[in-house]
Amino acid sequence: MITVRLIALGNLKEQYLRDAVSEYAKRLKGFCNFELIQLKEAYLPDAPSQNEINAALESEGDRILALLSPKAYKIAMCVEGTQLSSEDFAAKIEWITVNTSSSEIVFIIGSSHGICDRVKRACDFRMSVSKLTLPHQLMRVVMLEAVYRAFNIIKGTKYHK
Amino acid sequence: MITVRLIALGNLKEQYLRDAVSEYAKRLKGFCNFELIQLKEAYLPDAPSQNEINAALESEGDRILALLSPKAYKIAMCVEGTQLSSEDFAAKIEWITVNTSSSEIVFIIGSSHGICDRVKRACDFRMSVSKLTLPHQLMRVVMLEAVYRAFNIIKGTKYHK
Repeated sequence: MITVRLIALGNLKEQYLRDAVSEYAKRLKGFCNFELIQLKEAYLPDAPSQNEINAALESEGDRILALLSPKAYKIAMCVEGTQLSSEDFAAKIEWITVNTSSSEIVFIIGSSHGICDRVKRACDFRMSVSKLTLPHQLMRVVMLEAVYRAFNIIKGTKYHK
Repeated sequence: MITVRLIALGNLKEQYLRDAVSEYAKRLKGFCNFELIQLKEAYLPDAPSQNEINAALESEGDRILALLSPKAYKIAMCVEGTQLSSEDFAAKIEWITVNTSSSEIVFIIGSSHGICDRVKRACDFRMSVSKLTLPHQLMRVVMLEAVYRAFNIIKGTKYHK
């Protein structure tokens, strides 16, 4: 069974987001070994300068990079990435499991300022969900749903009509 | 103050979605008169035929059309619509309030099978959030966040950095 890891920054602040993530984590157990890794966001003052933001992203990047296994297929979520339909996303996940030696897929969702370039370069694919800016905490729910839907498409269940 | 109506199909099944919608509805009150209109989904059997789906969409369409005021600016959410960045979405909302006589913006999110063509044709704009299929119930949360973010961009608050 494939392992899916979601690396994200910060603990979820809203109970409804925690409940949503728990629900999808439970549902994913039928399809994969799912693990959510929540890293602490780097400290930033109010109204941070660009230099302060960059330093925070690099510090978060160090901790993300330390978690990435060379054998995992790594997907960075970023607005400049490629958008996929649910069907194409499912095909990509299936392709990874069949055509690469990866038994682990890692999704990385950065903090509200995103992900540093070093992490993006370490990834195999950059993926975008929307041109709209979504809160990174809500993005966690959207991505879990997308992964859950993708597995349902692969297995041919009725979830994705 | 502008009125924002969200017309959506079905009561929210998950408590976490109800909580999320309540939270954004509360936050939107600072920016607009917000109203969520939940219509009952048309009955569909398990594994419906395309004819049954079309009939359900037309029946839902009748009830949606009955709610649309000619003066409102109407936006249909559908996958073939135009994707906007949050900044462009904010600019569009500002443009509607300044350049049209509409004091009401209506967003329409269909059921899991979408929206019928008659409703789409009655709308002023078709908008898409993502190439990914999102559950229509989760879409409600995503759109409320997008509208809330747009008002914050228009007002120049710190919410959208």
